[in-house]
Amino acid sequence: MLKPGATIGILGGGQLARMLAAAGARLGLKCHIFSPVADDPAFDVCAARTCADFLDEAALAAFAESVDVVTYEFENVPARTAEVLEAHRPVRPNPKVLALTQDRLIEKQFVRGLGVATADFADVSDLDALTRAVAQLGRPSILKTRRFGYDGKGQTRIVDGVDLDDAFNAVGGAPSILEGFVPFAKEVSVVAARGLDGAFRAYDICENIHEHHILATTTAPAAISDATARAAVEMTRRIAEAADYVGVIAVEMFVVSDAEGERLLVNEIAPRVHNSGHWTLDGAVTSQFEQHMRAIAGLPLGSTRRHGRQVVMRNLIGADADKWAQILAQDGACLHLYGKKESRPGRKMGHVTEILT
Amino acid sequence: MLKPGATIGILGGGQLARMLAAAGARLGLKCHIFSPVADDPAFDVCAARTCADFLDEAALAAFAESVDVVTYEFENVPARTAEVLEAHRPVRPNPKVLALTQDRLIEKQFVRGLGVATADFADVSDLDALTRAVAQLGRPSILKTRRFGYDGKGQTRIVDGVDLDDAFNAVGGAPSILEGFVPFAKEVSVVAARGLDGAFRAYDICENIHEHHILATTTAPAAISDATARAAVEMTRRIAEAADYVGVIAVEMFVVSDAEGERLLVNEIAPRVHNSGHWTLDGAVTSQFEQHMRAIAGLPLGSTRRHGRQVVMRNLIGADADKWAQILAQDGACLHLYGKKESRPGRKMGHVTEILT
Repeated sequence: MLKPGATIGILGGGQLARMLAAAGARLGLKCHIFSPVADDPAFDVCAARTCADFLDEAALAAFAESVDVVTYEFENVPARTAEVLEAHRPVRPNPKVLALTQDRLIEKQFVRGLGVATADFADVSDLDALTRAVAQLGRPSILKTRRFGYDGKGQTRIVDGVDLDDAFNAVGGAPSILEGFVPFAKEVSVVAARGLDGAFRAYDICENIHEHHILATTTAPAAISDATARAAVEMTRRIAEAADYVGVIAVEMFVVSDAEGERLLVNEIAPRVHNSGHWTLDGAVTSQFEQHMRAIAGLPLGSTRRHGRQVVMRNLIGADADKWAQILAQDGACLHLYGKKESRPGRKMGHVTEILT
Repeated sequence: MLKPGATIGILGGGQLARMLAAAGARLGLKCHIFSPVADDPAFDVCAARTCADFLDEAALAAFAESVDVVTYEFENVPARTAEVLEAHRPVRPNPKVLALTQDRLIEKQFVRGLGVATADFADVSDLDALTRAVAQLGRPSILKTRRFGYDGKGQTRIVDGVDLDDAFNAVGGAPSILEGFVPFAKEVSVVAARGLDGAFRAYDICENIHEHHILATTTAPAAISDATARAAVEMTRRIAEAADYVGVIAVEMFVVSDAEGERLLVNEIAPRVHNSGHWTLDGAVTSQFEQHMRAIAGLPLGSTRRHGRQVVMRNLIGADADKWAQILAQDGACLHLYGKKESRPGRKMGHVTEILT
């Protein structure tokens, strides 16, 4: 159990790191941010800073030596980076989780191996494999690169008439998977935490709406049956336990509704605090950011109780954030701006939360 | 209206500045902390730092030039400091408010001048004046220095048998006031904000319990009649308007209960965020810290709506904070630690909030 005054090292300097650092400060923890980007927003709220490349091993070693535990705000931490850090200090969640979540194929095989359902998928290493996979899973289906995909990047839909050669080129001919089409009724996510002692706590299931492959709104709780909600939490617990996970984890799932009722398919695991958990900053007793800090510091997990009847979080993407003045004037709107210098289309600039009573 | 990315200068680096800086970051504002104490806790969460004396005019000027507006976390800002800063940038709340609240005599005369009740008081400039004042106001009564008193420092009770010479020596023979005894039923405070546009919003009235002259617990809402609560807010509004106030203001009041019902006497004005408003961090839609940042940045004020049926905040004084591990394990307890290196008796080390539903 880390003591107040301990230092948490955070890899990455974006909004997640920024909100983690602020949550750490509440608990009397200091944060040291490591990011290669000099004007990253997390640098504005931390006790110590290292601006260096993620492959600068001397900088990584000095950073690790200056902190008590290392965590990260993004899953694409290079394996070598994690290895260097781990030689000095505990890295939480553990780097095996990174290897798992950096590769869609390995992730899906891992989830299936736990007896947890996913969309049908096939390994696509080349054009021949893609041809076989489409023959097996049909159209429409989605081709996704195994690595480095986020917010819809590195994926393309294979609908009727799409030439497979073009599709494979669209993902750069990279090792990929083909996913069968899921006629989902809803997209939900479970944001939960597992402590160093194995304790597990989940927030209310979140219902997510994506626009242009980017999260647009999250509503908690999701409008699903209690049984489905319990099943979603159990799947997440099983994943966290199997990965010997410590920290906040988010598991995105599809809810399929058919004659037999609601079924869940796991879509993706995020080994970190997650955009669909931002509502907890204003809408829950303990925010996901504090929960993550508690977990990786070996502290007891906090209450995940929700405030109000329903909490709605809306992302401010690109120019959405220009409406900050109107949002501030809305009664009951909790505005968060991430302090990014430059607004770009598709860039997450902030979010706004409302607690309905 | 300041824009996101603007910089707020904060004088002082204690826990209030720390929580203000964190609240500013939520809104996309940067904070520059000015404090003479190198290991002050606010330095851990801000974008820019100046460690210099409050009378270092060159450092003050450079600080002011680097920010868009200046605010402060404590009322004992030297007049010259405020004057130097004001030559460069707006200081909010305005420095006239500092002059007013730094002197108990001037403060009480100001409040009375607005037709707002206070305890009876008399000006005590010397021992003769003290003798006359005690003859007028009786015993028990309280002798308080006009300036630099806080948390019970600079005051002494004059009960039966107390020698007036001793009493005057106990406050260092400093210019003082004598306050008549108030047989109060409760101590309450109004934490409210006035915007740059004159808008005014108050939180629920807080009920405060002091131990050894230091705030121990705050409960919101206070158990007082609706009429008394409305009167308390109106008094605060009147004070804020008369002072052309911008920012969060806290007004401490005594509630006297007698045959005629509840009456309010204003005890003290704090021209800043206040310990009795810490519950708003977890227990209200907008925290007092964000509200203050909104006000001084010229932004619309946020909702002061409370979460839950009742919110209770308990201060962690000195060794109380050593129990952090037990507090973290309490379900629903929101722990805040201020990151102070050294614990001392009477020192505010943190606080813990519970929201009762």
